[in-house]
Amino acid sequence: MQSLIHRLTIQTEKETELINITEQVKVLVKESGIKSGTVFILSLHTTTGLTVNEGIPDLERDIEDYLYRAVPDAHHYYHARYLPSDGQMAVNATSHLRGMLLGFQTFFPIENGEIVCGSRQTIYLVELDGPQFRNYVVQILGV
Amino acid sequence: MQSLIHRLTIQTEKETELINITEQVKVLVKESGIKSGTVFILSLHTTTGLTVNEGIPDLERDIEDYLYRAVPDAHHYYHARYLPSDGQMAVNATSHLRGMLLGFQTFFPIENGEIVCGSRQTIYLVELDGPQFRNYVVQILGV
Amino acid sequence: MQSLIHRLTIQTEKETELINITEQVKVLVKESGIKSGTVFILSLHTTTGLTVNEGIPDLERDIEDYLYRAVPDAHHYYHARYLPSDGQMAVNATSHLRGMLLGFQTFFPIENGEIVCGSRQTIYLVELDGPQFRNYVVQILGV
Repeated sequence: MQSLIHRLTIQTEKETELINITEQVKVLVKESGIKSGTVFILSLHTTTGLTVNEGIPDLERDIEDYLYRAVPDAHHYYHARYLPSDGQMAVNATSHLRGMLLGFQTFFPIENGEIVCGSRQTIYLVELDGPQFRNYVVQILGV
Repeated sequence: MQSLIHRLTIQTEKETELINITEQVKVLVKESGIKSGTVFILSLHTTTGLTVNEGIPDLERDIEDYLYRAVPDAHHYYHARYLPSDGQMAVNATSHLRGMLLGFQTFFPIENGEIVCGSRQTIYLVELDGPQFRNYVVQILGV
Repeated sequence: MQSLIHRLTIQTEKETELINITEQVKVLVKESGIKSGTVFILSLHTTTGLTVNEGIPDLERDIEDYLYRAVPDAHHYYHARYLPSDGQMAVNATSHLRGMLLGFQTFFPIENGEIVCGSRQTIYLVELDGPQFRNYVVQILGV
């Protein structure tokens, strides 16, 4: 059994942003030489999400819109953080709660060297407190 | 290490429907001959969910009811699709968003040839945009 | 390939409670002798959650607060259970629905005998219908 772990990074550009990482995952699996097993994908942050949905722009807007309705900015949150750039406290509890709703990881089987997934399943890393430099991991486990 | 991948299909019957697939998963694990490892279960769609909860009818009703309250039909969504049967556009952003809330995959350890799960844990494939022909995957990984 | 399965128990103390199990998981992985693989963590109940977030008390309060707003007590739920201690029916559909939102499992890669996770990622077992005696499982799979 082999375990190949790739640490990947991305500079996000917006406060909230869906970043399609599907092709990157598929290429890593193909190039790994592992024919049979499972690929695990996870973010290493608590203010990002990782979700799977159909890869179309109007649905991406619906997802962002939903996250702001489900976890509204206009509420008294306990958690706040100091923002050096602002010289003041800012609330990012919303980022944590939106990430909690989405989850931060996914997996797919590998068969004949390719991931088994639906034709519309698109893997998104979701920035929820950007822009920031972000880290995520793709682990390919198998033979 | 062995990886057995089963592609399963089901014809759903309702727009929203919880389908208990627990026994099917347990039987596949038992019949696999794999004694030690992990079973991964995932839907291949973006308008279904896969969730685990107690298998009782009144709770199934609460889950459906909750999904419609959390993601209400009465909202302006960006994503719409053409419905040939209706000859018009129809919104199914709600199906995608409800699926996002539920997630679409789960896993359980395998020990002595059986899955390790709680006595009340019931695995549901959740139709959110039916009726449709649906595909899901059970991967049994182990020795 | 080895699979080590640990069954763990905890007596929770409150109705809703976030219990940090991160150190326990890290120690089990270190002591396992498994250098390369994946660790799977799951609750065996349908009225608990298992989630990952930053481990700070004010955020824990925000998570609890959010769960009660997302799934309010004040609603007509179908599911109820008999409470022997009260001699009457009590609704705990809210516990099931809050757990559904959180999910009940997570995983992390193992590399060089340690779990690969973000510095702020804290693993919480979340009691949603306590106090109760609870069971969860840590499976360490690898070589």
